[in-house]
Amino acid sequence: MRKNLTYGMVGAALDSFIGAVHRVGAGFDGIAFLAAGCFSRNPDKNRECGEFYHLDMSRVYGSYEEMAEAEGKREDKIDYVIISAPNNAHYVTAKAFLENGINVFCEKPLCFEVAEAEELKKLAGEKGLLFLVNYSYSGNVMVKEARELVRSGYIGDVINVNAEYLQEYLVDDIGKGDQTMNKLSSWRKNPEIAGISNCVGDIGSHIEHTVAYMTGLHLKRVAAKLDYFGQPLDLNANILVEFDNGAHGVFCSSQVCVGHMNGLVVRLFGTEGAIEWHEEEPNVLFVTKKGQPMQTYHRGMAYIAEKAAAMSRIPAGHPEGLYEAFANMYKSWHNAILKQVNGEELTADDLDFPNIDDGISGVKFIHAAVESSNSDAKWVEL
Amino acid sequence: MRKNLTYGMVGAALDSFIGAVHRVGAGFDGIAFLAAGCFSRNPDKNRECGEFYHLDMSRVYGSYEEMAEAEGKREDKIDYVIISAPNNAHYVTAKAFLENGINVFCEKPLCFEVAEAEELKKLAGEKGLLFLVNYSYSGNVMVKEARELVRSGYIGDVINVNAEYLQEYLVDDIGKGDQTMNKLSSWRKNPEIAGISNCVGDIGSHIEHTVAYMTGLHLKRVAAKLDYFGQPLDLNANILVEFDNGAHGVFCSSQVCVGHMNGLVVRLFGTEGAIEWHEEEPNVLFVTKKGQPMQTYHRGMAYIAEKAAAMSRIPAGHPEGLYEAFANMYKSWHNAILKQVNGEELTADDLDFPNIDDGISGVKFIHAAVESSNSDAKWVEL
Amino acid sequence: MRKNLTYGMVGAALDSFIGAVHRVGAGFDGIAFLAAGCFSRNPDKNRECGEFYHLDMSRVYGSYEEMAEAEGKREDKIDYVIISAPNNAHYVTAKAFLENGINVFCEKPLCFEVAEAEELKKLAGEKGLLFLVNYSYSGNVMVKEARELVRSGYIGDVINVNAEYLQEYLVDDIGKGDQTMNKLSSWRKNPEIAGISNCVGDIGSHIEHTVAYMTGLHLKRVAAKLDYFGQPLDLNANILVEFDNGAHGVFCSSQVCVGHMNGLVVRLFGTEGAIEWHEEEPNVLFVTKKGQPMQTYHRGMAYIAEKAAAMSRIPAGHPEGLYEAFANMYKSWHNAILKQVNGEELTADDLDFPNIDDGISGVKFIHAAVESSNSDAKWVEL
Amino acid sequence: MRKNLTYGMVGAALDSFIGAVHRVGAGFDGIAFLAAGCFSRNPDKNRECGEFYHLDMSRVYGSYEEMAEAEGKREDKIDYVIISAPNNAHYVTAKAFLENGINVFCEKPLCFEVAEAEELKKLAGEKGLLFLVNYSYSGNVMVKEARELVRSGYIGDVINVNAEYLQEYLVDDIGKGDQTMNKLSSWRKNPEIAGISNCVGDIGSHIEHTVAYMTGLHLKRVAAKLDYFGQPLDLNANILVEFDNGAHGVFCSSQVCVGHMNGLVVRLFGTEGAIEWHEEEPNVLFVTKKGQPMQTYHRGMAYIAEKAAAMSRIPAGHPEGLYEAFANMYKSWHNAILKQVNGEELTADDLDFPNIDDGISGVKFIHAAVESSNSDAKWVEL
Repeated sequence: MRKNLTYGMVGAALDSFIGAVHRVGAGFDGIAFLAAGCFSRNPDKNRECGEFYHLDMSRVYGSYEEMAEAEGKREDKIDYVIISAPNNAHYVTAKAFLENGINVFCEKPLCFEVAEAEELKKLAGEKGLLFLVNYSYSGNVMVKEARELVRSGYIGDVINVNAEYLQEYLVDDIGKGDQTMNKLSSWRKNPEIAGISNCVGDIGSHIEHTVAYMTGLHLKRVAAKLDYFGQPLDLNANILVEFDNGAHGVFCSSQVCVGHMNGLVVRLFGTEGAIEWHEEEPNVLFVTKKGQPMQTYHRGMAYIAEKAAAMSRIPAGHPEGLYEAFANMYKSWHNAILKQVNGEELTADDLDFPNIDDGISGVKFIHAAVESSNSDAKWVEL
Repeated sequence: MRKNLTYGMVGAALDSFIGAVHRVGAGFDGIAFLAAGCFSRNPDKNRECGEFYHLDMSRVYGSYEEMAEAEGKREDKIDYVIISAPNNAHYVTAKAFLENGINVFCEKPLCFEVAEAEELKKLAGEKGLLFLVNYSYSGNVMVKEARELVRSGYIGDVINVNAEYLQEYLVDDIGKGDQTMNKLSSWRKNPEIAGISNCVGDIGSHIEHTVAYMTGLHLKRVAAKLDYFGQPLDLNANILVEFDNGAHGVFCSSQVCVGHMNGLVVRLFGTEGAIEWHEEEPNVLFVTKKGQPMQTYHRGMAYIAEKAAAMSRIPAGHPEGLYEAFANMYKSWHNAILKQVNGEELTADDLDFPNIDDGISGVKFIHAAVESSNSDAKWVEL
Repeated sequence: MRKNLTYGMVGAALDSFIGAVHRVGAGFDGIAFLAAGCFSRNPDKNRECGEFYHLDMSRVYGSYEEMAEAEGKREDKIDYVIISAPNNAHYVTAKAFLENGINVFCEKPLCFEVAEAEELKKLAGEKGLLFLVNYSYSGNVMVKEARELVRSGYIGDVINVNAEYLQEYLVDDIGKGDQTMNKLSSWRKNPEIAGISNCVGDIGSHIEHTVAYMTGLHLKRVAAKLDYFGQPLDLNANILVEFDNGAHGVFCSSQVCVGHMNGLVVRLFGTEGAIEWHEEEPNVLFVTKKGQPMQTYHRGMAYIAEKAAAMSRIPAGHPEGLYEAFANMYKSWHNAILKQVNGEELTADDLDFPNIDDGISGVKFIHAAVESSNSDAKWVEL
Repeated sequence: MRKNLTYGMVGAALDSFIGAVHRVGAGFDGIAFLAAGCFSRNPDKNRECGEFYHLDMSRVYGSYEEMAEAEGKREDKIDYVIISAPNNAHYVTAKAFLENGINVFCEKPLCFEVAEAEELKKLAGEKGLLFLVNYSYSGNVMVKEARELVRSGYIGDVINVNAEYLQEYLVDDIGKGDQTMNKLSSWRKNPEIAGISNCVGDIGSHIEHTVAYMTGLHLKRVAAKLDYFGQPLDLNANILVEFDNGAHGVFCSSQVCVGHMNGLVVRLFGTEGAIEWHEEEPNVLFVTKKGQPMQTYHRGMAYIAEKAAAMSRIPAGHPEGLYEAFANMYKSWHNAILKQVNGEELTADDLDFPNIDDGISGVKFIHAAVESSNSDAKWVEL
C-alpha cells in the first residue's frame, strides 16, 4: 500500500508568491513530493526551478503538452498535477493532463467558458480522475466549523447573506487606463489572460464559493453593478444575490477599497443564529444564537466540531494562516488520491474539497455578474 | 437678548424611551425648558406627564390641534415643538404648528408622501420658520469629523459606499404574520401608522441620511430587494445604490440579523482614502490614507477638525453616547432658534442640522426602495 | 410624600467639564433640582453660575462654610450637596455640610488622610446622613452586570486580577519639572491641592474601587513602583496586589502611556470563568466560561441580570456613556435620599452605591501605594 | 559553493505538534533537508520517524550521544541539529553536539542553570559554532518591525513596558495536586523535566525575550509573585520589572486565565510613541505617535521597514502564523550557516536571531523570578 505521492507543477516559477504557497502546502504533511514540472515558458527560469527542486532534469519540461504526454506514459508518472498558471492556461492544461490520465489540482477560476468547464467535468468523469479547484479558503478550519454549524441547524434557515472581499491594491490605477498594464499583477486586468473579469473573477469568485461551501446554498440569480474606472476589466463590484432557497443578500468585491488588504468577510444570518468569519483573522469564528451574546469560537478548542477539528494543526491561540489553509486543501486531496491509488473506496467525506462542480459554479457566477452589469444590473440567472 | 428658550412636546409619554432621550437632550445645555405638551391621547397619561414635568397644567393639552392653536396665540408661546409621535402623526402635527407660527423639531421619517413633505417645506418657508428632521446620528462628533474630512478632500472623490444598519430584534416575527402585531414596537410594522415601510423607513433612512450628511452626495437611483417574511411590512432590505456623482455601493438594513443590536456602520471609499464609522462605538472613526496604515481617530483629541471638536463635551476616551448625540442636535438647533428670536442673521454653519430637505430626501428614498422592490429590484430614480 | 429633591453644588463652575457632567447627571431623571451653590471663589464666576442656573441669588454663597451654615438652618434646605472641588477641599467641605445636617455626594478621592476619612464616617453615622463617594464607573450597567455574575458564582473563586487605567495626556510633562505646573490640569500634580499622589490618586483609585465593587474583594497589601519623571507627583504606577482571599494581580495606572485616552480595563480571572470590561466601550462585557468561547454581553439584552438591567436606559446597541454612568449614580442616590426624606426604611439594595467605607479604602490604597514605592516596592498592608 | 544544508533532529517524534512545526519550518524555503535523527527513546517510535522521513536508517540513532558522536565523525555530517526535546535534555544534548563540531538550534528555555548556559556559550565560542535559542516569536515580521521602529527612535525612550502571556489550559488543575501529572503536557509541571518553573519558564520567558528583542533593553531586576495553586510548579506569575535604562513595567504570565488561548501581548510605551503587538493577531502592529491616532500597521505594506519586510512571504492581508514565524527563524539561521559553511564573513545582520546570550538571559530571568517569589516578591537582580 502506497503511503507517498508524487506530483508535478505547471507554473509557479520561483518568483511567484503563490507558487511557494503551493510548494509548502503540498509538502506540509511530508507525504507528497515534487517529481516533475513545467514552471515557466522561459527556459532559464524553468531550468532554474528544476535545479532548485533537485528534480531529475528529464522531468523538467518545456511545455505543458510535452509534460502531460510524457508523464502520462511513465510507469511512475506523477499522481497529480498542480496548475498554478494564469487563468487562460487552466482549461488547456487541465484537459491535457486529464487526457493523459493524471489527476488535476487547478487554481481558480477554473476556466473562461462554462462549456469548457463542463467538458473538463465530463472528461474527468470518463477517466475516473479526481479534480480539485483551489478555492483555498475552504481549507481553513473555521470555514469548516462554520459549515458544520450550518449543517447542524445551529443558525436555522439561512435568510440573509452579507459577504465581501475588499482590497485596496489597485486604487492607484483608477483613471489611468493602459498605463498600469505593465505591473506585475497586470495580467489580472488583461482580458486575454484573465478572462471577462478581474475583480469578480479573482476575488468575487472566492465569496461565491466560500458562501456555498459554508451553507450548501447555490446562487439562483444575481443583479450586479461593476465599476471599471477606465480599466479594461472591472475593479469593483456590488452585487445583489438570490439563493436557491429564496434568501437574498449582497456580495461586494473590490480592489479599490482603501484600508482593506485582503478583507474576505462572510456573514450568514439564519432564523436561529448567525455566523461571521474573516479571512484576515481566520482562527476565530463569531457565532451567535438569537437573543444570546455573540461567542468567539477559537480553532483548537474542544467545542469545535469533529470534522473541522480534524484539520487543526496547532493548539488554540497559535495562529494558522494561508499556508496552513493550503496545506489542509492538500491534506484532503492527498487522502483522496492515496485511497484512489490504493484502490480504496472514496466516501463523501473523502471528497470534501472544492471540486469541478464548484469550479463550474464559479464560472457561471462570473458570467452572470458581468452579463448583469452589462445590462444595467438586470437579474441574470446562473 | 434672550438666552433661554421654551419648547413643547407632542408625544413622548413617560414610558417612551425616546421621549426621555428628547427630554434629556433638549435640557442638556441648561438653556431650553419644557413649557407645554400633549404627551398622550390617554388623558391620565397626559396629565401624569404634565405633573411629572411640573408644567402649568393649562398648557397640557388634550390634542395637538388644540396645543398648536393655543400656543400660537400666546405672547409667551413655546419657541419650538418636538414631535416625537408615531410616523402617521408627523405631517398633520408639523403642519398645525407651522401654521401657528411655531418652529418644528420632528422625528424621522418626516412623513408618508413626498407631496406632504414639499407642502411642509413651502409652509415653513412662507412663515420663516425653522424645521429640523431628527436624523440624530448626525449629532455625533465623529460623524461631523467624517464630514469635515470628506470636505477637506482627505479621501479624494468618493467611489464606493458600503453602509448598513443591522438589528436582530424582529427575527422571532419571521413567518408569524399578524400574531406579532400586539408587541410594543408593532406599530412600526403597521402600514397605517408606520407608512409603506418598516425596516427601510425606520433604519434604512438613517443610512441614507448619514451617508448624505458625511459626503454631501445624494442618491440618484436605487435597486432594492426587500424581504417581508410574511409580515405586513419589510424586515430586511438589500439595496444597490447609485449616487449623483456616479459612485455605486450597497445599503443593507435589517431587523432580522442575529448578533446585531444597533449596527449602523458607514464605510466611505474614495480615490485617496477611506473612512469608517460605527454607531455602536461612536467615539472613534477609522481613517485611512491609501497605502498607509488605518488610523483610529478619537473624539476629543487635538487633531479633530474644529467644527467637529466644537460639539465634543468630555475628554477623549470618556464615552459619549446616544443622549449626547441628541444633545448635540439640540445644541445646534437651540443656537439657531436663539439667533432667530434675537433677530440675528443665520449663517450656513448655524443651519448645520438635518433640515426639511433632508427629510424630503428620506421620504423619496423610502418610496424608491419600496417601488424598486415591488418591481423585482428594477432601478428607480429618486 | 415627596417625589422631588433639591441639591446644592460646591465647585463645578461653568468651565469645568466634570461640573457639567454632574449637572446633567443629577438632572437626568427629572426629579432633583439645583437650589443653591458655591461654584467658585471668584465672585464673578460664582454669580455667573447662579444666573445661568436661574437660582435665587440669596442661595448663591461666597464660601462653602457660609453655604453649609445657611442651608442647614433653612426649613427648605437642600437635600444634599455635591462636592466637585479639588481634592484638598473635600474633607473640610464634607465636614461642614455633615455638621449642618446635609447629605453629601462627594467626588473621589474622599480626602487626604485616613483619620479624616474615619472622622467623616463617624460624623455621618452620628447625624444619620447619607454619604456617597463618586467612583462613577460603578454607575455603568455592565459594571453592575459584572458584579452580579461574580456574585452568582459564574466565574468561581477569583484567582487573579489584571486591571489598568492608562492615559497619555501627561507624556509631554516628562522631564519638564515645574514648567508644566501652569496647565489647566496642573492642580492634580500639586501636592498641596491633590495630596500625596497624582496618578494613583486620580485614576489608580478608580481601579481599586471598580475591582472591589465587581468582586467584593478588598486589598490586603500592595507592592508598588511609582514613576515621577521629574514631576512633583507620580505619573505612572505598576503595582503588585494581594487580595483578602489570597489572590494576586497587578494594577497599572499611567498618564504617560501613549495611545491610551481613558483606558480603564478590568480583567477578573476565576476558577470557572473570566470577565473583562473596558470603560471606553462600556456597553459590552466579555464573559467566558472555562473551556468555552468568549461571549460578548450587550447592555439592554434580556440575559442581563435584573439588578444591572434596572439601570439600563436605552435599547441594546444604542451607546450609553459617561453621562449615563453619572446619571445612574444619581438614580441610586436619589432613590435612597427620597426614602430617607419620606421616612422609609433603606435596604441594602437601596444603598448600592460607593459609600464612605469605599472612600476610606481608596485613601488607604493611595497611602499604601506611595509608602510602598517610597520603600522600593516593599509590601505595605492596607 | 553550497546552496543546501542538512540537519538532524533530537526529539520531535511524530505525535509532537511542535516537532511538525520544526519540520515544516526548517523545510519552508526548500534548502535544508533532514538527514539524521534521534526522535524518541522508544525504538519503535524512533524507527517509525526515520521511515516516515525516508532517512538512511543508519542515521537514525538510539541516543543523542551516539548521534552526536557518529555524525561528528562523518564527512557529510549534518550542518546543524535541532533540539526539540523536554527542557532537561537541552544542556546535555547541546553540549554533546557542540563537542562534536555541530551547530545547535535549541528549543527554549536553554537549560536549567546559568553555569550550564555559560559553559555552552564558552564551548560554542571555542569551536566557532553557531547557536540559536528558539524564541520563535522573534521570527514574526511584525516583531521585527517593532524592533526597527524602536531602533529608529519612533517611540523615543522606552519608559514603561506592559507585557503578558496568558493561557487558560491548566485552570482545571487548580487544587488537584499530583492527580493532573499524567496528562500529556504534565512534564511541564514536573521539576525533574521542566526545571524550577513551569509558567515562567515555558511562557514567561517568551515575554522576557520578545521585549528584549524589540527594545534592546535588558532586565536589571524583578519582583515576582508566583502562584502554585497546589501544583509542583507555578501556574501564574505577576512580576514587577526594572530595565537597565531605569524603566519599569509588569510581566504577567499565566496558564489559568480563562478566555486566553495563547495571549502573548507586548506593549511598549516611550516618550514619543507606543507600540503594541499580539501574537494571536501577528500580522498587525499597533503604532501610535503621541497626540496622534493609533495606526494599524499591516505586514506586507510598503511602509514596513526593510529588515522586517525582507521576512514577509505573502501579500498584506493574507495571514501568516506560527509556522511562518518558525520558517523565518530558520531562514535567518540557514543564511548564517550557509555563510559559515561557504567560508563567508558573518555580519551582525546575518546573526539576527536569538542566540546563546539570549538563552542565558532567559535562564537568569527564570531564576530571578522564582527566587524573588520565594522571598515574598523581594527585588532580585538578574
